[in-house]
Amino acid sequence: MDSLYTEFVEQSRKIADLQYAAAVLEWDKETYMPAKSAEIRSQQIATLSETAHTWLIDPAYENVMQQLLEQKDLSENELDNVKIRLKEVLRLKKKTPAFVRKMSETVSKAYHKWIEARRKNDFSIYAPALEELINLKKEEAEIYGYEEHPYDALLQEYEESASVEMLDKVFADLLPGLSEILEKYKNKNIDTHFLHKKYDAAKQLEWGKYLAEQMGLDKDKTRLDISEHPFTTNFSATDVRITTRIDENDFSNNTWSTIHEGGHALYELGLPIEEYGLPLGTFTSLSIHESQSRFWENCVGKNGAFWYHYLPEAQRFFPEQLSEIKLEVFMQAVNRIEPSLIRTEADEVTYHFHIYIRYLIEKELIAGTISTKDISKIWNEKYKELLGIDVPDDKSGCLQDIHWSIGSLGYFPTYSLGSLYAAQFWDKLKSDNPNIESEISNGNLNTTLQWLRQNIHQYGKKYDSEQLCKKVTDSTLDSTIFLKYLEDKFSK
Amino acid sequence: MDSLYTEFVEQSRKIADLQYAAAVLEWDKETYMPAKSAEIRSQQIATLSETAHTWLIDPAYENVMQQLLEQKDLSENELDNVKIRLKEVLRLKKKTPAFVRKMSETVSKAYHKWIEARRKNDFSIYAPALEELINLKKEEAEIYGYEEHPYDALLQEYEESASVEMLDKVFADLLPGLSEILEKYKNKNIDTHFLHKKYDAAKQLEWGKYLAEQMGLDKDKTRLDISEHPFTTNFSATDVRITTRIDENDFSNNTWSTIHEGGHALYELGLPIEEYGLPLGTFTSLSIHESQSRFWENCVGKNGAFWYHYLPEAQRFFPEQLSEIKLEVFMQAVNRIEPSLIRTEADEVTYHFHIYIRYLIEKELIAGTISTKDISKIWNEKYKELLGIDVPDDKSGCLQDIHWSIGSLGYFPTYSLGSLYAAQFWDKLKSDNPNIESEISNGNLNTTLQWLRQNIHQYGKKYDSEQLCKKVTDSTLDSTIFLKYLEDKFSK
Repeated sequence: MDSLYTEFVEQSRKIADLQYAAAVLEWDKETYMPAKSAEIRSQQIATLSETAHTWLIDPAYENVMQQLLEQKDLSENELDNVKIRLKEVLRLKKKTPAFVRKMSETVSKAYHKWIEARRKNDFSIYAPALEELINLKKEEAEIYGYEEHPYDALLQEYEESASVEMLDKVFADLLPGLSEILEKYKNKNIDTHFLHKKYDAAKQLEWGKYLAEQMGLDKDKTRLDISEHPFTTNFSATDVRITTRIDENDFSNNTWSTIHEGGHALYELGLPIEEYGLPLGTFTSLSIHESQSRFWENCVGKNGAFWYHYLPEAQRFFPEQLSEIKLEVFMQAVNRIEPSLIRTEADEVTYHFHIYIRYLIEKELIAGTISTKDISKIWNEKYKELLGIDVPDDKSGCLQDIHWSIGSLGYFPTYSLGSLYAAQFWDKLKSDNPNIESEISNGNLNTTLQWLRQNIHQYGKKYDSEQLCKKVTDSTLDSTIFLKYLEDKFSK
Repeated sequence: MDSLYTEFVEQSRKIADLQYAAAVLEWDKETYMPAKSAEIRSQQIATLSETAHTWLIDPAYENVMQQLLEQKDLSENELDNVKIRLKEVLRLKKKTPAFVRKMSETVSKAYHKWIEARRKNDFSIYAPALEELINLKKEEAEIYGYEEHPYDALLQEYEESASVEMLDKVFADLLPGLSEILEKYKNKNIDTHFLHKKYDAAKQLEWGKYLAEQMGLDKDKTRLDISEHPFTTNFSATDVRITTRIDENDFSNNTWSTIHEGGHALYELGLPIEEYGLPLGTFTSLSIHESQSRFWENCVGKNGAFWYHYLPEAQRFFPEQLSEIKLEVFMQAVNRIEPSLIRTEADEVTYHFHIYIRYLIEKELIAGTISTKDISKIWNEKYKELLGIDVPDDKSGCLQDIHWSIGSLGYFPTYSLGSLYAAQFWDKLKSDNPNIESEISNGNLNTTLQWLRQNIHQYGKKYDSEQLCKKVTDSTLDSTIFLKYLEDKFSK
């Protein structure tokens, strides 16, 4: 018995070794790899990924898991590991190798067309390849199967508890409240010019490293590097890496990117290392991962208590640019709300309109009620209707995100769910620790981190998002808490 | 037919993808990896290496090769690829998985004991684990088989044409001549103090990058990073990386390390990319690889013609330290000969005594004519006898090299062979291009690089070292050319 579970663990770890090796090659590609080796590197990564996939769906591996379930004498954690992994394998197995290959080819084509369309600022260049990809995603939805809506099958690729029914309700609860807040607090000539003075790149990187360290990222288990788009990746709970992008004319981007990615990293660092390669050593879901990054970026990192301590530190790093800036002025600039074109630059309120528009379009594309060629038109209409802004071109409109081009349909909603969970966790942290903001205002972030470790990180994938939320907050997903959090923040 | 060769190529490339992925993980480990993830990283690398090994000895792979040989309609290059790979596979197959595992465990133990013994400066701590490893290497020699001497089997792991008979002759020819040169030209109060002024680390790194670029390393296919010990690694002919170590009180280390590793890198960059993952896309042998690094480090990089152009450049980088230094004084310091304790710091002449002592000890250990516990004593006696110096402790004596601790017995001689081949190639380059030194003295290194590309790099593993040497120089390995090269250099 014991040796059968050991066999399961060993095979699971070998699979993880390959997947994490692929992640190292990806990280290197985005940070240090010389430009001319992109092609061979992609092939090397594909070999690692395909081999990991083959091992995952190997009947012998499944057989070990089936046997373990029959033998009924596993510990609770062991049983969880086997059950969760088996479920993943059974889902993966539904796709034939031919389908996987077709998807990979179609994605590669769509991605290159997206790049070209962006360069030429013309969605129509990308539309035919995207249509082909959407058709394949519809096929994928049928392969996975669904109860209500074909889009549910794709949503659940990223978030088990998500569905059209659930998300329609979430957005219906959320958007009217957000519109109200937007109307009430949107930009009234707030001064932000000091955020756009010249901030030296090397100094900004130092500042990023300082922030990461302050948040509790262990220097012997993490790195901060530069890449074109910020990201977090991990190769075990002892090696978690974040990246940032530095714009010398902007203080904000590097600062909140680093705090955001730092939040992701703290989650990975808090996963139990003894469960390496197993479900309990892996994050719950994308929305919970995003809840961690947004918790740090917004609930902590855009909080006056945080900057009460850290604005003087920022002034120490950038005396010329910031020494004259009062905390109140700084916080107003940080929490400025204003409808804008680009999702990744949006504030905490308008952000969810960006997500909602993408969600709507994806849902209708998969249902077949709109056509790929109309995306640009629909996109622009919705931005006008919901955010009141004119989209001048496709580059700042429907070509801005990479997601569709790499086949990630159903992914965007996890960003909004992440914000909602973050607000609920923040609310619970505050009620568990009434003095938390005063602690934070002393630059003490440890209680916050320990609370997250204790309540969220340690469980890995033991619970799904909804179960975890219930366990932590004693409540299910609840957008009113997010709205209340925003109202509290902006009324200050 | 064609499709069977394609199958061979695809499987060979998948194996290479895993091996190169392992190399990326190794590179990262030595350069950027956070300290606390060493253990899991080693496990990830082991999974990749073991999988590549399993694929290499897969009977289906061998079967494809056997079939291809029977079908007799391959092109010359195709046939070479299949024949060479099959020979490698048949050799690998001789070791059982149990033996491979035993070796890996024994090496791991010996390596850790070596680290401890070095720290405590006491060979006796390491001796028992090394003895166990030597016994296993003897077993390995039996597994591989040999005609004359069991050590031949180990030598041939690194260099197919090497044997005790061959090396005894090489050293017998070489050492008396070296002794003569040493006696004649050894240090007569040469001024080297300017090489040990303070050289800023960041500036040294810039200087290293400048040198690499001057040698012809394409910036879009290479990198120069910092690591504890300099090395070269490659993940394809489009991604070759070198590292250097920087000591702020030393100009030499970084300079000639970078030129040395740059020579290795140019070789890898010159291998035919269309043969990726196949023998013809891989280097000939360790000695030929080393011939390339030593060619650049010594024949070019310690040549007065080279510094005629590059000393002014070095003075531009380091005006304070070097601007007063005349070329003649600089060249005397660079080519100073003096017996010393540490192999990696030895000059071109005394270096080969270091190698000879290691070769002698290895040969006798494998033959069983000396015992592991006596290594320290024999080492110190030989250093006294051959170099006339007293070894003060094990750390600067028999504990200085990593090689034995990782099971690399038979490796050292390739370093000496590399020097010999380098001198022969240099000699031929000069006779093919009588003006080459004048070109080099103008900072034009391109003829040199193109000559190496044309005569050596392009062939990959098509020829073995001896065949290649014969093809390039019309002569076999010949230590008199090396001795003549030294005599020429030092008589100037």
